[in-house]
Amino acid sequence: MVGKVYIVGAGPGKKDLLTLRAYELIKRADVILHDELIGEVAELLKESRAEIVDVGKRSGRHKKRQEEINKLLVEYARQGKTVVRLKGGDPCVFGRGGEEAEFLAKHGIPFEFVPGVTSAIAVPEAVGIPVTHRRYDPALVFITGRESRERLNWKALAELNATIVILMGVSRIPEIAKNLLEHGKDPETEVAIIESGFSDRERVILTTLGKMAERAEKERVKPPAIIVIGKVVELYGVLSRWLG
Amino acid sequence: MVGKVYIVGAGPGKKDLLTLRAYELIKRADVILHDELIGEVAELLKESRAEIVDVGKRSGRHKKRQEEINKLLVEYARQGKTVVRLKGGDPCVFGRGGEEAEFLAKHGIPFEFVPGVTSAIAVPEAVGIPVTHRRYDPALVFITGRESRERLNWKALAELNATIVILMGVSRIPEIAKNLLEHGKDPETEVAIIESGFSDRERVILTTLGKMAERAEKERVKPPAIIVIGKVVELYGVLSRWLG
Repeated sequence: MVGKVYIVGAGPGKKDLLTLRAYELIKRADVILHDELIGEVAELLKESRAEIVDVGKRSGRHKKRQEEINKLLVEYARQGKTVVRLKGGDPCVFGRGGEEAEFLAKHGIPFEFVPGVTSAIAVPEAVGIPVTHRRYDPALVFITGRESRERLNWKALAELNATIVILMGVSRIPEIAKNLLEHGKDPETEVAIIESGFSDRERVILTTLGKMAERAEKERVKPPAIIVIGKVVELYGVLSRWLG
Repeated sequence: MVGKVYIVGAGPGKKDLLTLRAYELIKRADVILHDELIGEVAELLKESRAEIVDVGKRSGRHKKRQEEINKLLVEYARQGKTVVRLKGGDPCVFGRGGEEAEFLAKHGIPFEFVPGVTSAIAVPEAVGIPVTHRRYDPALVFITGRESRERLNWKALAELNATIVILMGVSRIPEIAKNLLEHGKDPETEVAIIESGFSDRERVILTTLGKMAERAEKERVKPPAIIVIGKVVELYGVLSRWLG
């Protein structure tokens, strides 16, 4: 009998920010294929009886290609196994969970998405930046530094009164700032760059849209980082010192 | 000694989509103030030793006002209690978690945000609609039907190549459709209305932007519902039947 693939969000990297369901599935999986960015959750995998396959691991300098991962999922499921495909954050927020699901569906493999806490919301929140607040921008936008380069309508994004949260954007900071500024976004807009959220190396850099490129270079910001662009960032000054 | 307030996300309403941390805090709280939209998590509260305060309950026809809730949080904390403020979804995604935190900070009460799985992502995902996918729109936008009415730049939203997810939008469906259409958003854009996600009454209505107002009226859509507007909705047809 064919097995089932659970496409599971590992959350933002803290063990206790896993969902109860993800925790349960990790315990009862036959095989777990996981990405790199799962933080502390990697420790939990040691307690699992499952076969653990690190598909984030680089062989040579290359990660496992998406097609290889897709094929592995199908193969394990066809062996009748309960497969957990574990991804950082939520599986459907720029995590290719949708692509893997599509591949499974096309090959007749039953699957389920198990949502996770996304870093895009949780990382700013944890340092004292709520991504929405009634006094500030009415919309909230997520983009990535990678996939959005040419395809994104930067003019509309600059004109939309939204708090902008950027994932996987570190290497594109100069380009992102330039695109938004060229299309009229206020250079005084507050920016927070939160590096290595939920880890011992966590660092918050406060700046403005006009200065973010220079500042990020000077501070040698490294991935992973979540970038928040929006006036709501000013709440950091009020909230962060009361975070207990 | 002053207590601490945990502003906690209850997730989309399924017990097992709580985080381990939220579960732990529910067990050890002295008092829990909760909203209406916490679904099955309400059952868990019965197992807690905490005093339970339903601040979503209507007295007469009015809910507890936000100011009353803010004051209660401060009062309980000043009594030295461990307070859990439990909200549906994530506390900072249109949930006023940021406002409550601000009030606490202004009154010198230590607090912490505990992120949750947001319905905005999890509800579409659970029925087979990943909110992002590389083949579709590069941006993802969240708005509400309530707060965004006049303040939102609808022109920019219509022009942004984004998947749009709307929370608390049921009563504003005709207005939302009109605003987007008037600003040039393609009437053929796919729409999914997911009513009562993660409950026995869950229902998925597929339509298009041009027809959504008429269709929602005909189907008598009731809140709560998550509305997804974007071409990525077409994946529902591929994915939903393989959801096991």
